Parts: sequence; structure tokens; C-alpha cells
Amino acid sequence: MIKKYYLLSPGPTPVPESALSAAAEPIIHHRTPEFSNIFMEVSEELKYVFGTKQDVFILTSSGTGAMETTVINTLSPGDKVITLNGGKFGERWGQICRSYGVDVREIVLEWGEPFTKEQLVDELKANPETKAVLATLSETSSGTVYDIQGYGEVLAQSEAILVVDGISGLGATPCPMDEWKVDVMVAGSQKSFMIPPGLAYLSFSPKAWDLVEKSTLPKFYFDVKKYKKSLGKRTTPFTPAISLIIQQKKSLDIIKSLGLDKLFEHHRILGETTRAAVKAIGLELLSKIPGNILTAVKVPEGIDGLQLVKIMQGKYKAYIAGGQEPYKGKIFRIAHLGYMGGFDIITALAALEMTLSELGYDFESGSSLKAAQTILKENWE
Amino acid sequence: MIKKYYLLSPGPTPVPESALSAAAEPIIHHRTPEFSNIFMEVSEELKYVFGTKQDVFILTSSGTGAMETTVINTLSPGDKVITLNGGKFGERWGQICRSYGVDVREIVLEWGEPFTKEQLVDELKANPETKAVLATLSETSSGTVYDIQGYGEVLAQSEAILVVDGISGLGATPCPMDEWKVDVMVAGSQKSFMIPPGLAYLSFSPKAWDLVEKSTLPKFYFDVKKYKKSLGKRTTPFTPAISLIIQQKKSLDIIKSLGLDKLFEHHRILGETTRAAVKAIGLELLSKIPGNILTAVKVPEGIDGLQLVKIMQGKYKAYIAGGQEPYKGKIFRIAHLGYMGGFDIITALAALEMTLSELGYDFESGSSLKAAQTILKENWE
Repeated sequence: MIKKYYLLSPGPTPVPESALSAAAEPIIHHRTPEFSNIFMEVSEELKYVFGTKQDVFILTSSGTGAMETTVINTLSPGDKVITLNGGKFGERWGQICRSYGVDVREIVLEWGEPFTKEQLVDELKANPETKAVLATLSETSSGTVYDIQGYGEVLAQSEAILVVDGISGLGATPCPMDEWKVDVMVAGSQKSFMIPPGLAYLSFSPKAWDLVEKSTLPKFYFDVKKYKKSLGKRTTPFTPAISLIIQQKKSLDIIKSLGLDKLFEHHRILGETTRAAVKAIGLELLSKIPGNILTAVKVPEGIDGLQLVKIMQGKYKAYIAGGQEPYKGKIFRIAHLGYMGGFDIITALAALEMTLSELGYDFESGSSLKAAQTILKENWE
Repeated sequence: MIKKYYLLSPGPTPVPESALSAAAEPIIHHRTPEFSNIFMEVSEELKYVFGTKQDVFILTSSGTGAMETTVINTLSPGDKVITLNGGKFGERWGQICRSYGVDVREIVLEWGEPFTKEQLVDELKANPETKAVLATLSETSSGTVYDIQGYGEVLAQSEAILVVDGISGLGATPCPMDEWKVDVMVAGSQKSFMIPPGLAYLSFSPKAWDLVEKSTLPKFYFDVKKYKKSLGKRTTPFTPAISLIIQQKKSLDIIKSLGLDKLFEHHRILGETTRAAVKAIGLELLSKIPGNILTAVKVPEGIDGLQLVKIMQGKYKAYIAGGQEPYKGKIFRIAHLGYMGGFDIITALAALEMTLSELGYDFESGSSLKAAQTILKENWE
């Protein structure tokens, strides 16, 4: 058989055809009115997805580059911060901060466990000198969505800023930056923004800008003031990834024409479908508060989880993601993020059932598909 | 008339059709054997262009990100360095170093003036504690190529490392890293590497790695040890710009099939053609040691240089570059870099003559084209 490739991972995600073909057009110069117009339209439209009236800056880097940009522009050596570590990406906040001599109070959570706003209140009481709380909207390693709205309520009453890694979640699950009082929001191009990796986006509230003025950490390429100054001149401080920005315009056209509310609803349906489907064949979710970005599923007792992912990816070319340490071989992750449709979930589930069957897992063949199409059919419009 | 767009700037440069169309293919995941194979092929083939046996690392950033990576991985606060500032990009070395508390002895050169290896010997005698000399292969703001081979000879006899910004020059003009004893070489994807901007490349000599071990400057995204460790696992530490790396494979196929020597000869012919052509209509070069990457031309007396560039770009869509401060309005720059052919230079010259004629410059119409095609014809094979 012809082995077609199905991208079902939580980043990179599939890119719409109109955005793919835009990358095949001849490159134009970035210091021209033609490009400036596209760049400014993208910058404006990103504000819509961010839910902010503040500037949104475009970096040529991975999302981690934008996380680092946040740390080095708002903090100084010895500053005290709280980081929420509920997985690989929450852990990264602590790693970045420590690399710069920031004093980290790291709250290590079990993967998939919630962290409530009441717990945050207690932490802040115990650590009154906290300058920033660094959290994650959607933790990609565990499929968990945290209570950013709650944290925003708490931190609005304090001196500390709320920094949110929205890389995998923003645009797929609600998190309006201004309304929820997020002070720094970070996003990446290869998630709900529906283009290839290579761009990162971020925005600062006025409260965060006050810290920028005080920050003494060294920076050059990631100096946010340079990006702000250049945005005023309708450009970037350094040569940007031109083709990716042009692709972003195409995908933002799709995002805008659908509208954010419909996109959230779309992700909710796909998330609900996936959760119901895996439960229908007796599988359990890792997260107690699963989001609609991806679903992390526990590998059932007696099944080799590494083998499961290997067969899914290698034999069926269904590129779901495996687990990351310490959950490697213990979970697998099906994404329903960005430019994915209902039948992409059906594909993932069919490949999953065929794989589980091969590995000797006992279940009723077709029952996850049945559960999935029931929900899809009810919601299809 | 239909206004076609002609990219004649020193970055971005035109992208070959095979590399353009590769970007229109569906995105694949970066943690897969399929992508790892492409990534490792690109990493290997970059060594050929660099002229090194050392690892070449791929960053998702502009070239400036790779310049900063060099500084923060080899130096520590208070370290003494010499920077050669013969234009905007040489100046940038000083700006980056100062952002990190490095002690900079900046040699400010007139744009287009040479800096000899004998002068470097004197500078090193006067500054014996110098840890690094940061130079530029091809200074894009002035069209000048410096004597990197000579600097390498000098620095091989000293403790200091030679750091070279090869962003616009590498691959277009000879600079074999190992043979010329360059300790850190930096390059960018949108120049002779013939793909869009968004990737930067760099490589460290064993002498530079010794400094990496001693460097105390903070870093995370640009920590070269992370890239080295990941390369050993056939991957990158952070999600890379997947589509650009796949495009780079296509353009490296072209570069390899031609061979570096033929590419250098190609650029030499285009450079010689451009210089002879502009001289044929009485124009003067800015640089005393012009390279074959781009030609910076003085705007003749009585002609409005800003207007010249505006007409070239706006009316004729011939996207040459203007001058940067303090040469804004005083020079213009025609690139002959990367995937450009002989008739691209003819196009640039025809647009230039039509523009100069409109601005009232006195010259014999067609004489630059005649001079150009004479050289092209002699060398065409």
C-alpha cells in the first residue's frame, strides 16, 4: 500500500494548503512597503488571537527563544520568581531563570494534577517578594490546561506579574490576555497558528513594561525594546523569517474568517471526541484536567508503550507523539491542534486500534471509532 | 506594463525553484527518522561550505543571533576583545560585546578601507590580553572583503581566537575555515546559501571550544553546548524551522553539484562585470577592496541618491539596496550574491541607466550594458 503521512503531533501541526503554497512564491525583500504591509497586518491580527490591545512582537526563533526573551527583559539577577512545573515545559521556565541567576521557587506538580488559585494565594503569602509567576497555559507533555484566569485574578492584586507560556494553547483554548490579566504571553507559530515552526510571538502588559525598565539582565537579539522600536517603524530589528511571516498572513486569514470562538469550539469537539473514544476502549487519561489541545493517554498494563508509538509512526505513518521522560513508554499523545479536522481524529483512532490489536490488547474492535463518530456527527455543522 | 519584481539585494537573495517548491510540501515532524536524516545531511554538507571538519550548528534565528551565540559562548564579562568596525555589521560586534560587559577595543575604519594583517600585529602588541578578534568577511554595508586569511595567520601565533562574521560572504568568496585558521565562523541562510532568512549557522574550532569551557556569560536558547549535545543525537535542542532546513537541503544540492570553486568563479565574474559596468558610465566604487558579493557605488555629484533608490525599487521593481547611515543617499548597492545569474546583472544595470537618465545624469546610454555583456560573453561557459 501507499503509505501516506499523517501529522497528529502537538507541534508541528498541519499547515493549510494556502499557507503552504505561499512559501513557494519568490522571496521579497523585508525593507520594502510590500513586506511592511504584510508584517503590520500580521502584527495587528496577532493581537486578535492574543486578546490584547498591546503590541505583539514577532521573533525569528522557537518558542523557547520567546520564553527566554520574557525572562531576560523583565527580571534581574537575584529576583525571586515562582515557576509552576507540571511537565517538561513548566520545568523549562525554571531552567531558563536559573541560567540567568534568578532565584526560583519551583512548584513541582504531579503531571496532570491541577494547581488552584487558592494554592497560588498561599504561595504568594509565603513568598511576598515574588516578582513574577511563570506558568503554562497548556502543558504539552501532559495534555493539561491550567487555570490561567484564576492566577490572573490573584496576581492582579499583587506586585508580581503573570507570565504565561501559551505556546501550545493560545488560539486553541480561551486565554484572552487583557481580560484575564496576563502580563506576558508567549506563543509559537507551529501550533494553533497553523504554520511551520520558526516564529515566536510575545506581548507585554503595561505592568510588565515597568519591569522591563528595571531589568538588568544582558540581551541583544532578544532585547524587546529593539522590537518595540522597530515595530514603530513597521519593521523588525533583524532580518526576519520572511517566508514564514507571509505564511502566517495566510493562516491568520483562516483564523480570522472562522473567528476565535468557533476555533475554540472546534478544538473542544475534537478534544471531547478523542477523550470519549480512548475511554471507549478502556484506556485512561493522564491528566485530571485535560485540555482540548492534545490528549495524553496512559499505555495500558502489559502493553509496550515504546512499541506502540513505533508501530503508529513507522508502520501506519500516524505521527502521534510518545511520552517524554519520566513518562516515556508510559503514555502516548494524540494532538487535536490547529489545522486538524474530525477525520484526522478518526485516522488516529483507527491506527491506534490496529496497533493495540497487533500488540495483543483486549478490546472491542471499532468501539473507539464508533464513540468518536457519534460525537462528531452530533456536533457536525 | 506588467511590473515584475527583481530581487537584487544582498540578502534576502533569490531562492531556486526547487527550494521554493519544497516549502510547499506538507510539514513533517522534527523528531522522526525522516527529518533526522535530512537534518544530518544538511549539517554534513554545511561543513563543505564552511571548509571545516568541525560540527556546524543550525540555529533558528537571524545571523545576528549566531553572532550573539559566539560572543556569549566564548567570552566572559571583562574579557578584552578587538572588533573591526568597517561598517554596520562590523559595528554590531562591538554592540553585542558591550551588551554583555565585554571590554571592547574597537578599530573604526573608514568604510571601504583595508585593514592589513600588519596592522593587526601592531594592535595585538598594544593589547596583549586580547581574548578574541571579531572581524567581518564581507561587510554588507560597504561591499568590502577583508583579509581573513591574513588575520588567521597572525592569530594562529597568539592566544586570541579569530571570530568571523561570514554571513554575507561565506560560500560566495573563499574563506576555508580550517585552512585559514578561523576559530568561529558565522553564516546566514538568506545569502549564498540560497534559501529564505530564518536560519543561522556556526562552527567552533578546538581553540574556540577551550574558551567555551571557560565562558561565564549567561545563555539558554543560544547555548552552543546544547546544540552540540543534540547534534550527537541527530537533532536540535529546540523545535527548528523545519521547512527552512528542508529547503536548505535542496539548495545545498545545487551548491554541491556546482562545487565551491565554480561558485566562487561565478561570483567573481558577476562582481567584475558589475564593477566594469558602473565604471563605464563614470560611476565610482565606495570600497577600495570590493568583494564579489555586492558592489557599493557612489551616487554621482548632483544626483539625489534617495530618489535613485526609490525609482529603482518603486518604478522598475529592481530591488537593489540603498546606503545605510552615514552613507544613506550617498551610495547604492547592487548584489550579485547567491542564486543570481548574468542577466540579473544586466537587468540591474538597465534599470540603473533608465533611472540615472530620468534623474538627468549625463552618460552614454547603453554603455554599462555593453561593458557588462562583453565580460559575461568572455566568461560564459
